[in-house]
Amino acid sequence: MPSIFTRIINREIPGHIVAEDDNNIAFLDVNPLKRGHVLCVPKEEVNYIFDMGEDTYINLHSFTKKVAKAVEAAVPCKRIGVAVIGLEVPHVHIHLIPLQNISDIDFSKPKLSLSQEELAETAEKIKAKYQA
Amino acid sequence: MPSIFTRIINREIPGHIVAEDDNNIAFLDVNPLKRGHVLCVPKEEVNYIFDMGEDTYINLHSFTKKVAKAVEAAVPCKRIGVAVIGLEVPHVHIHLIPLQNISDIDFSKPKLSLSQEELAETAEKIKAKYQA
Repeated sequence: MPSIFTRIINREIPGHIVAEDDNNIAFLDVNPLKRGHVLCVPKEEVNYIFDMGEDTYINLHSFTKKVAKAVEAAVPCKRIGVAVIGLEVPHVHIHLIPLQNISDIDFSKPKLSLSQEELAETAEKIKAKYQA
Repeated sequence: MPSIFTRIINREIPGHIVAEDDNNIAFLDVNPLKRGHVLCVPKEEVNYIFDMGEDTYINLHSFTKKVAKAVEAAVPCKRIGVAVIGLEVPHVHIHLIPLQNISDIDFSKPKLSLSQEELAETAEKIKAKYQA
C-alpha cells in the first residue's frame, strides 16, 4: 500500500504543498510543532533515510536547503531546525521547524491545532519565497 | 575565537573522535541523549547549516551517512535519528542519535552521565565500523 506521503505526491489526498521538483516534494506537517513546520520527502518511497541511494539522498538534501531558505524567509524565527526520526510513517521525511528556542523541536509536546485556512495561508507564503 | 569544535578538530582539547576526512569530523557528544550520540561537524567553521556552500553542505551529508551506518552497526537501536538545532555552539553540527522511540530525540531531557571510559569504549566500537 502506498504511504500517506505517496498519496499526497500523487494528489490522491490533499496536502499544503510548498515546493516540488522531479524527485522531491515539500508540504506542511498537518500536526505542526510550530507554524511553518514543513516535511521534505523524496518521491521514491524509501523507509529509512540512510538506506537511500547516494544520488537521491544528496538530491533530497539540496532540495531541503532550498525549502529551508523559503521557510526562513516566510516565517519569523531565529533559524530552521532539522529532524529526521522516521519511527511513524515508513517513508523518508525531513522535518524543517522554525525555531525560537531549543524546546521548539521537542516531538513529545502537544502539536498545534491550525485551521485549513491558516495552513493554506502559511503554505502560500512559503511557496512565494521558494526559489527552485 | 575558535569554536569548541574547532579546538577538538585542532586537537587542542580532547574529543572522542569516531571518524574524520579532509572536510569533516565526527565525535561523541559529551552530554549525550543516548549512548552512541555523535556530532558530525564540518571543519570549516560556519554558524548555520543552511548558510554553508553547496559543496561543503553536500560533503557533510555524505560523510554523515557513513557515520550513521557505523553508529547503527555499533550501537543497538531501531534506527539513527538526525537533528540540527544550532542555537548553542555557533559551528554547524548534525546530531546522530540511536533511537528506540520518538522521545529519545527530546533535547529538553536530562543528558546521560557517562564516564570517560564508557565514552572511549563506545567511540572505539563506532570507529571500528566506520567505512570511509
